[in-house]
Amino acid sequence: MNGVSDAVLNGDRLSLARLITGIENQQQDSLLLLDQLFSHTGRAHLIGVTGAPGSGKSSLVNQMACLYRHPKHGEPEKSVAVVAIDPTSPFTGGALLGDRVRMRDLAGDSGVFIRSMASRGELGGLASTTSQVVQVLDAAGFEVILIETVGVGQSEIDIARLAHTVIVVEAPGMGDDVQAGKAGILEIADLLVVNKADQNGADHTQRILNQMLEMANSKRFNSEIINHHRGEGRRDTLPAMPDWRPPVLKTIATEGTGIEDLVDQVSKHWDYLQASGQRKSRENERLIKEMEQLLREELMSHWRSQVADELYQKILLGLLEKTYSPRQAVRQLVA
Amino acid sequence: MNGVSDAVLNGDRLSLARLITGIENQQQDSLLLLDQLFSHTGRAHLIGVTGAPGSGKSSLVNQMACLYRHPKHGEPEKSVAVVAIDPTSPFTGGALLGDRVRMRDLAGDSGVFIRSMASRGELGGLASTTSQVVQVLDAAGFEVILIETVGVGQSEIDIARLAHTVIVVEAPGMGDDVQAGKAGILEIADLLVVNKADQNGADHTQRILNQMLEMANSKRFNSEIINHHRGEGRRDTLPAMPDWRPPVLKTIATEGTGIEDLVDQVSKHWDYLQASGQRKSRENERLIKEMEQLLREELMSHWRSQVADELYQKILLGLLEKTYSPRQAVRQLVA
Repeated sequence: MNGVSDAVLNGDRLSLARLITGIENQQQDSLLLLDQLFSHTGRAHLIGVTGAPGSGKSSLVNQMACLYRHPKHGEPEKSVAVVAIDPTSPFTGGALLGDRVRMRDLAGDSGVFIRSMASRGELGGLASTTSQVVQVLDAAGFEVILIETVGVGQSEIDIARLAHTVIVVEAPGMGDDVQAGKAGILEIADLLVVNKADQNGADHTQRILNQMLEMANSKRFNSEIINHHRGEGRRDTLPAMPDWRPPVLKTIATEGTGIEDLVDQVSKHWDYLQASGQRKSRENERLIKEMEQLLREELMSHWRSQVADELYQKILLGLLEKTYSPRQAVRQLVA
Repeated sequence: MNGVSDAVLNGDRLSLARLITGIENQQQDSLLLLDQLFSHTGRAHLIGVTGAPGSGKSSLVNQMACLYRHPKHGEPEKSVAVVAIDPTSPFTGGALLGDRVRMRDLAGDSGVFIRSMASRGELGGLASTTSQVVQVLDAAGFEVILIETVGVGQSEIDIARLAHTVIVVEAPGMGDDVQAGKAGILEIADLLVVNKADQNGADHTQRILNQMLEMANSKRFNSEIINHHRGEGRRDTLPAMPDWRPPVLKTIATEGTGIEDLVDQVSKHWDYLQASGQRKSRENERLIKEMEQLLREELMSHWRSQVADELYQKILLGLLEKTYSPRQAVRQLVA
């Protein structure tokens, strides 16, 4: 252990911020520090908050963070980190920071750490870097880590999967009947939130989401029965407790309405994960995925350092002239 | 060349459909056929159509396909393939096909081929498979290939990048001020479409998109100046023609309004790509990306076949017990 990792473990914010910047830039010294800190991870509750632009996720995250800092009914306060993933504009290299402005309610509170990350625009790269940043915050002792992702696409889903608890946020009237289903995101939701519930159509959206959940559940149930009869996918152990059924909650984040109930349900989900053993299995799955991603990159760069530039260029040319298909080019390169 | 690839080249629809299914399932015999067909690719105009759910992309794609089949003003008709990417529900393995129903206008036309692809839920996998399916359709002689992607996320952006021409579709009032900018998608648009232009706020959305484009352009301009003075990113050759400025068009797809203008602008963009040499550079970039992705997978599976299971399990356990960080585990595995 050196001075910096001690400082991070002791909650020194400047050291923490610098380390995260180093990890965002994939600097070797920062990654070595992360290796040292890694054994201190595994304590935080990771909460993913995802949904389409305009659903009001940022306000919701803000309100949740405030409530963790100032809980009602004499519950213990919790330290909170927020990691917001904003897509990058390729020509600025920077993230749009508008939403972060709303976070000023939390400014000056040493129990809160907010970080806006820029997407590097590389498939897979962001998920891996985000995972590392979350590990640093976890090691630094933040009890709750809120991971906010914009959009509803595949890599956003992968980032949300980092979390123990995934909250999917919808707003009324955003193409209700298609939004959740088409985005394929309903299946990763542990909690669903209809935000902006004072707008027209909130009840309608809530009803549709509940219907979709029921449809999804009955399909899952049927396919489990089918698989059981086929002898596939049998469970080795019977479930000791009923499955978690994602609740569909209504909130008005801008007014703080419904946040207490949301945070309460998040805490119930945490208890469920612990009791069912899923907390550990989700964490293991995440670590294995992250390792495999790093392994893929390592093998590629190792290979690249071994292959002659001349051969590489020659085969690349063959590909561009359509002498080789991409698969044939790979076979030539690996041979 | 065997019978199947001849049949595909000669436009046999059943052979084509079977080959695409084989490629979706990554069957070896189908991938070998693709290798044979690869030298016949490179003729089609690939058009990506992307945007958030509810923007009316599918209707727009339908109308565009109809117009290519039945052009006004005596232009030659073109054969059209449509590849629609729908996210999969993990428990059904199937795609939501609602939108495809609208395509029945085109049913029975042998110059049209429509394919709905299911996302395999794997990061990167869908982009690679879609690219292969598009290559088959290209080889089969379809002159226009419309690639419709749902959502605004990273992998959707990567799929859109497959195309020569990227159309980004917005609907009025879908969180105007944030949608395009936050999604980081404005930068990949060659054409912007405000669909559902009969709805309130269409002019407002069009104005905002134009403003965002101007902002983006001036930022790009500034950073080019800065880079020039830094000596970075200098252009080796001065541009022989002015840059393409993405037009912001209005359409009402359900009524067919604005489609002629859209198709006309798409054709102008194609001419621009040819004249500026960008057609070739976009195609090359795409092929190299695809090859690198395949190479990564190949290296991983090659490595996995060589490493002893016992060692792999031991190090995995060390990772899960947090003895090794993911990076440390990779270093142990590769050593």
